[in-house]
Amino acid sequence: MAVSRERRVPAWAQIADAVRAQISAGELAPEDRLPTEAELMARHDVARSTVRQALTALVNEGLIVPRAPRGYFVRNRKPLFYRPQQEFRAQPAYPEMDRFMADHSAEGREPKQEIEVAIVDPPADVRKRLNLAEGELAAVRRRIRYLDGEPYNTNDSYFPLAVVQGSEIMNPADIARGANEVLRELGYPQTRTLDEIYIRMPDPNEIKRLELGPGTPVACHICTGLCDDGTPIRVVVNILPGDRHVIVYERDGMELRK
Amino acid sequence: MAVSRERRVPAWAQIADAVRAQISAGELAPEDRLPTEAELMARHDVARSTVRQALTALVNEGLIVPRAPRGYFVRNRKPLFYRPQQEFRAQPAYPEMDRFMADHSAEGREPKQEIEVAIVDPPADVRKRLNLAEGELAAVRRRIRYLDGEPYNTNDSYFPLAVVQGSEIMNPADIARGANEVLRELGYPQTRTLDEIYIRMPDPNEIKRLELGPGTPVACHICTGLCDDGTPIRVVVNILPGDRHVIVYERDGMELRK
Repeated sequence: MAVSRERRVPAWAQIADAVRAQISAGELAPEDRLPTEAELMARHDVARSTVRQALTALVNEGLIVPRAPRGYFVRNRKPLFYRPQQEFRAQPAYPEMDRFMADHSAEGREPKQEIEVAIVDPPADVRKRLNLAEGELAAVRRRIRYLDGEPYNTNDSYFPLAVVQGSEIMNPADIARGANEVLRELGYPQTRTLDEIYIRMPDPNEIKRLELGPGTPVACHICTGLCDDGTPIRVVVNILPGDRHVIVYERDGMELRK
Repeated sequence: MAVSRERRVPAWAQIADAVRAQISAGELAPEDRLPTEAELMARHDVARSTVRQALTALVNEGLIVPRAPRGYFVRNRKPLFYRPQQEFRAQPAYPEMDRFMADHSAEGREPKQEIEVAIVDPPADVRKRLNLAEGELAAVRRRIRYLDGEPYNTNDSYFPLAVVQGSEIMNPADIARGANEVLRELGYPQTRTLDEIYIRMPDPNEIKRLELGPGTPVACHICTGLCDDGTPIRVVVNILPGDRHVIVYERDGMELRK
C-alpha cells in the first residue's frame, strides 16, 4: 500500500496508523518482529526518514520496542495485577475477579524484593498526609520488587519516626505478619485508607530505578492509612509502570437496590 | 551556574535537572514563565541546541508547556477528583476524604457534556467483558465531558443491545436518574462492579478528542457492572488524561481488627 498523498495526514502518520491497526487487530502479536525499515520503505514508497519518524512515534506511544540490531518488536505487556484491596482482603470477594486474575496472573514468575530503611525528612506531600510538623522525621521502608529479575514496581512506606522507632519496622527485612500488624501492636490499628492514583510520565530517577523504556508512563499510587480517630499512621507511595500493571478494585453496588 | 563538564551526565540533562528541581521545590510555580532560551544559554554557558534539548525533555515529561511566542510555562495541573465509588455512594464515607476533595475541588468550573448513542459491533475487550457472542450487538452511549470548555474525559458505556433496545438508554440525552436505575427497572440491578485501570500513552484519536499535549499519559478505566448472578450488564470505558485527574478510592480496613 502506497501512502496517499492527497490526504492531509502526513505520510509518517499514515504508516504509523497502518502498523497500529495491525497491532490492534492482532495481525502483529506481542513479541512479533516488525517489517524492516527497507520493507516499510518499499511497501509505502517513502524515504527512510519517513519510516523512522513513524517508528519513533510508535516507540513513544509504547506500542513497539527497538532491539538493535534485530529491529523493532511489538511490545509484550505482561501486566501484574495490582490489587490495593488485597491488603485487607486476601481473596477476591467475587468469582468474576477470581477468573479475571487467573487469566492474567503472573504465575511461575520468580519474585524478589530489595528493602532498605532510612530516617528522613519526608517529602512535602508525605509530610502533609502524615500530619507531621515541620522538622518531625519519618522512617521510610523503600522496596523495589522484581519478577524474574525485572524491576516491577517501587513501594516507599513512610511512618512517623516517633511511633515506629525501635520496632521491627526499622529492620530492613521482610515482616512476615506485615507492617500493619506491627502498627496495630504499637497501638495504631488502621481502620480505613484513602487511595489516590496519579498518572504521569516518570522522572529520570524512576526511569533508572525501574528500567523504563520510552513511552512508559507510571501510576503513582499514594495510600494513606488512618486510625479510627482519623490519625494518619502510614503513607505508602507506590510507583507502578504502566506496561507492567493493571490496577484492579472490586466494588459493592448494594446501595443501588435500596 | 555553568554546567559541569566533568560529570557523566550530559549538559542538557543537567539543565533539565536544574529546572525540574526548581519546579519540585516550588521556586517555579504552576503558570510561571521559564527563563528564555537566551537566559538559559547565558546561565549555563551552552549552545541554543543544548537548551532546546533540555526544554524538549521537560515538555515530554509533561512538566512544562510551550506557548509560542511567549515561551515555556510550568504546567498547571488542576486535577479533577475522579471517584469511581461515587456511582453508588454520593458522599464520601470518611471525613478525611471530604476535606481532601474540598482542597482539590474543581468548584466554580462550568460542566458540559456531549452525548451520542450508537449501535455497534463492540471492540473485542468490551465483547469479552459483556459476554456477548460473536455477532451480538451492543448499544454505546459516548460522552465527552468538558469543564470550562476544556475536554476533561470521555466515557463510553456499552450495554447488550437486546437488553436496552427501546429504553431511555438509547436516547442521546442525560438520564437524570442514571442509566443504572434504568437497568434496574429493566430487571438487571447491578450488585457489584470490577474496576480495571490501565496506564498508557494515548492513541492519536484520544489525543485529538481530548486535546492532549505532549507528555500526557492517560488512565483507561474499565468498569464492568454485574448482576447478582454474575451477568455482566454494563461496561464503561473511561479515558482520563493524567494531567486533569486524580483517581481516588476509600477502603475499609476493618478486617485488620479481627
